[in-house]
Amino acid sequence: MGIQDRAYRRHFPTGARNLITDVAGVKVGHKTVDDNANIHSGVTAVIPADGNVFREKLLAASWVINGFGKTIGLVQIDELGTLETPILLTNTLSVGTVSTALVRHLIQENPDLASVNPVVAECNDGPLSDIRSLAITEQDAGDALDNARELFQEGSVGAGRGMTCYGLKGGIGSSSRKAGAYTIGTLALTNFGSFADLRFQGTEIANDHPMEDKGSCIILIATDAPLSSRQLKRLARRAQSGLARTGGYTGNGSGEIAIAFSTQNRIPAKSATQEPTTFHFLLDDQLNPLFQATVESVEESILSSLWNNDHFIGRDGNERRCLREVMK
Amino acid sequence: MGIQDRAYRRHFPTGARNLITDVAGVKVGHKTVDDNANIHSGVTAVIPADGNVFREKLLAASWVINGFGKTIGLVQIDELGTLETPILLTNTLSVGTVSTALVRHLIQENPDLASVNPVVAECNDGPLSDIRSLAITEQDAGDALDNARELFQEGSVGAGRGMTCYGLKGGIGSSSRKAGAYTIGTLALTNFGSFADLRFQGTEIANDHPMEDKGSCIILIATDAPLSSRQLKRLARRAQSGLARTGGYTGNGSGEIAIAFSTQNRIPAKSATQEPTTFHFLLDDQLNPLFQATVESVEESILSSLWNNDHFIGRDGNERRCLREVMK
Amino acid sequence: MGIQDRAYRRHFPTGARNLITDVAGVKVGHKTVDDNANIHSGVTAVIPADGNVFREKLLAASWVINGFGKTIGLVQIDELGTLETPILLTNTLSVGTVSTALVRHLIQENPDLASVNPVVAECNDGPLSDIRSLAITEQDAGDALDNARELFQEGSVGAGRGMTCYGLKGGIGSSSRKAGAYTIGTLALTNFGSFADLRFQGTEIANDHPMEDKGSCIILIATDAPLSSRQLKRLARRAQSGLARTGGYTGNGSGEIAIAFSTQNRIPAKSATQEPTTFHFLLDDQLNPLFQATVESVEESILSSLWNNDHFIGRDGNERRCLREVMK
Amino acid sequence: MGIQDRAYRRHFPTGARNLITDVAGVKVGHKTVDDNANIHSGVTAVIPADGNVFREKLLAASWVINGFGKTIGLVQIDELGTLETPILLTNTLSVGTVSTALVRHLIQENPDLASVNPVVAECNDGPLSDIRSLAITEQDAGDALDNARELFQEGSVGAGRGMTCYGLKGGIGSSSRKAGAYTIGTLALTNFGSFADLRFQGTEIANDHPMEDKGSCIILIATDAPLSSRQLKRLARRAQSGLARTGGYTGNGSGEIAIAFSTQNRIPAKSATQEPTTFHFLLDDQLNPLFQATVESVEESILSSLWNNDHFIGRDGNERRCLREVMK
Repeated sequence: MGIQDRAYRRHFPTGARNLITDVAGVKVGHKTVDDNANIHSGVTAVIPADGNVFREKLLAASWVINGFGKTIGLVQIDELGTLETPILLTNTLSVGTVSTALVRHLIQENPDLASVNPVVAECNDGPLSDIRSLAITEQDAGDALDNARELFQEGSVGAGRGMTCYGLKGGIGSSSRKAGAYTIGTLALTNFGSFADLRFQGTEIANDHPMEDKGSCIILIATDAPLSSRQLKRLARRAQSGLARTGGYTGNGSGEIAIAFSTQNRIPAKSATQEPTTFHFLLDDQLNPLFQATVESVEESILSSLWNNDHFIGRDGNERRCLREVMK
Repeated sequence: MGIQDRAYRRHFPTGARNLITDVAGVKVGHKTVDDNANIHSGVTAVIPADGNVFREKLLAASWVINGFGKTIGLVQIDELGTLETPILLTNTLSVGTVSTALVRHLIQENPDLASVNPVVAECNDGPLSDIRSLAITEQDAGDALDNARELFQEGSVGAGRGMTCYGLKGGIGSSSRKAGAYTIGTLALTNFGSFADLRFQGTEIANDHPMEDKGSCIILIATDAPLSSRQLKRLARRAQSGLARTGGYTGNGSGEIAIAFSTQNRIPAKSATQEPTTFHFLLDDQLNPLFQATVESVEESILSSLWNNDHFIGRDGNERRCLREVMK
Repeated sequence: MGIQDRAYRRHFPTGARNLITDVAGVKVGHKTVDDNANIHSGVTAVIPADGNVFREKLLAASWVINGFGKTIGLVQIDELGTLETPILLTNTLSVGTVSTALVRHLIQENPDLASVNPVVAECNDGPLSDIRSLAITEQDAGDALDNARELFQEGSVGAGRGMTCYGLKGGIGSSSRKAGAYTIGTLALTNFGSFADLRFQGTEIANDHPMEDKGSCIILIATDAPLSSRQLKRLARRAQSGLARTGGYTGNGSGEIAIAFSTQNRIPAKSATQEPTTFHFLLDDQLNPLFQATVESVEESILSSLWNNDHFIGRDGNERRCLREVMK
Repeated sequence: MGIQDRAYRRHFPTGARNLITDVAGVKVGHKTVDDNANIHSGVTAVIPADGNVFREKLLAASWVINGFGKTIGLVQIDELGTLETPILLTNTLSVGTVSTALVRHLIQENPDLASVNPVVAECNDGPLSDIRSLAITEQDAGDALDNARELFQEGSVGAGRGMTCYGLKGGIGSSSRKAGAYTIGTLALTNFGSFADLRFQGTEIANDHPMEDKGSCIILIATDAPLSSRQLKRLARRAQSGLARTGGYTGNGSGEIAIAFSTQNRIPAKSATQEPTTFHFLLDDQLNPLFQATVESVEESILSSLWNNDHFIGRDGNERRCLREVMK
């Protein structure tokens, strides 16, 4: 989806859906957990590629823009440059439960699995949801995995249910770009910034003095470009620039984390021979269009989480306006 | 305890107990989970200091020697330089459950807590325990926390129950050193190396060609020296040197991670004023004795996990000799 | 100076000069090296504080946004968290010569100096200057140091002489912000981006498809806020956000490096006693205004390097327009 | 050469020369600068591969074990994962001059070069040589490059001339290992540790209390194994383990830096097409023999710098014993 506004300027064309799933093989599933009272939370699952990603791992990299966050799984991604599970998103205090659910899911799929690196990222939906109740169950995580499709909703769904971004209703946003032969797809879970910070394609929407930036932002970057983990880390680092274009300055308490992966050059769980393996990679001087497409797609993903959203009333009557309201 | 051998050479004196708990305020608790059949696992809890560590956080740092590991909590330690929970150790696939238990424990202790960074580290006890059964419960983690004392056992207890180190029975080891006015205390969860690699104070115990190094090693370093998080990271980096002295070369599949913390200079959860806060730190040119004491204490902690251990029979009759057996 | 336009929007007030030298003790000196033919280069010196900075070092941190760069000195800044020399800026191939000049300068000032960590950063002015001629001399670097003052010029002076930014004439830009009791001062050496990328407070100036981003950007951040080196690194990381607001996406070949230092909490070259030293630091939850002021000041510094500039003709008649021309 | 002692234990066979030049294409040259009075210094050049390394770069990685050091060139190695020049070693205060010499050398060889990342590492030979005199000239660096051969001397030659290691005469040491089809070659410039720290294959040579660890150690690791830059970084990280086995604990003031490179998978200075490039890499689960061979070879290189050395009298009559003397 992304921004449904003909005036929205882009330097690169979007993919067919303008979603992270424009990268072939990627699927996204939500499980929204909402009791119409004080629980407004959920889980979002991102399946990074076709096939068994534990047996045929993906090259990947993570980047911590600001580490006020509780994501699990980054240590091994950094060491080995591989992703071997779906990526799950949820609220801060549910990372453990969702992580166990993901482990259980992989145990069931892989009879010989004795070790696995689950990747679960989070933002804090406490202001709109009773986060201390630990309402998310292992079943909810399993449901999000089961719900994964190429077409998925943005806004206040799944892990995005209770999120607040730039003082407005945030949540899940997604976008994509075509850069030559390759596609960049991005998905953001947005939960950061104050209203005064927000810039929509360079235009400030509010004007008061911006002091508070709490919350977090998780940014996932998928591509079918053949990139090494080192190059994927370079992509992930550009997420900060996309975020900054929406006005964010990365506050002290904002856990801003990017994970990038490529669907090319799958890595077997175990080497079959003693011989080297053949890889195909772009050279670094071929990366500029991908860098720029990433910045653009991340920017639009964040804005899209605001754009594709509605006025929301959370726990204790805490209210959030949506972007369309404030932009008239 | 450490190595109970009068011939064991040390350059610095040990603390009174030769345990990590020689650093005042540190406590360690085990919950061993063993069904006398195929489950030989557990949880070990390290309480890093007196008082409420969530409200009065500790300066801390982590260091990933080799990131084939699933530890949760390092992202925020690195960003903020603080530790705000006990550190729990367990098996690889139980990190999520133990993490949730730790979150629940902190929710109960802190009525206003809406966000917290649980720290849970792991090694893989799969060769001796049925790790796929996910046998560890939240209650087990709670019990380990409740069991925390200044005096604690080493060897095949708690998280160390099913661990294998240098092909022998590994597990929990601990040691300490006095360096001038300060104490360094260390604790290791050992699960790495092949028998052929092992060196006991420089002496090779076995002689066959060493090829396999699977498993992991978690190393905790406590001190009452007033160190900044940057300086604590320097301490944590020396853990690799202590480990190397026991013969380890840090194999591909070995998740080797160090976490260091100081009990001095506690950080309030929320700043009370606009003013700067007073800290007391050593200068970097005063650190050499602490560096060397750390290397020595880490070396002895690893060896102690082997020394204070017994012959062990795990799942499917998998057997491990203990160090005393092979050293005659 | 910064942007001399009453319409320029700021969320924080500037310091008295709107220059990095609004942080008390900071001085900047230029030596422009220009033969009116093919050499258009130079050296810029930033004195970070009053007094002998080798004997009383400054807390500091560096951050590599994109490491296609040849800066010397970052390894030790990262390890010890200290800056012990002025920072010199020059062209890419002159880093060695300027570094030796800086070492010689410090040898002369410090009779007992046997080791020192010179910090020299660079951008590539090759498109406008005959960089292969290695025209910069040790004397030029010495002159830049001697020329250091609180009032200094921006634009095509010193190291900025031959720089190109966003396809326009770049060079030296500077700005400052007051954030509560503290001042943030920043200085940029700009040499990156294509014209199509440029955004002036959110407005795109050109409209063609942006593909090329060569060159680099060095960003210095000075403050009188009492920050630890870990906190200064957090400031330095926000430089990417300021740069992104001007439209940059950090191209493959762009060496973008930030160095931040505080004039508070000076560190003696040698500890005098065995005792801990007293420091005063802000807590991390007090940093948000400083983070935001840094982003704003970096953004304005980059734009100021374009604004305070003139149409320029470099080697082989290579021409650069200035920002005022293209903004009419 | 390495250790010429039949009792020296190795788990992997050495290459034909037991030198870094057992990796095909690697050459080493020394220029010793010694006035038989107060100057005892020099330059050592390591040519990493056949052909023009600027046009056909090598995959490479660096690792800072302890960053009290002034090495230039690591920023770009880390970003791009490539090495594009020979590596020069010299004394601390001569890095700038040697770097300029290296730039000049590359300008001459490459008519179109406008930017290059020279790599120059250092240790501080001040205790044995008048380092403040800046005696090393650009010509000396050029001579070291010209002197590069497959056979070269170890000990007090080139950059090693004035170095002190473990209180004994240090300098240049080298070794190599065959690990299956591949060769690991290492070279160390040793200038760290106190006599009391030294362990020769696990045996302590001295027995007094070790407190002082000043100086540094540069470790170069060459291989013909087809490794990515991420994997080469993993190799470089194991250098600390090799160093620790000789007794070092990495003191505060010790600049310990490793650089690893592979002679396979050369990278063109400019991509010729839009297409991906084919690479051949080992998988990570094939790396253990290379890791262990690296640790062994680094250990022997350090010891070899002591072994292949003689009693030495430096500036002001400062004297150093050699290892053979103290081992009887």
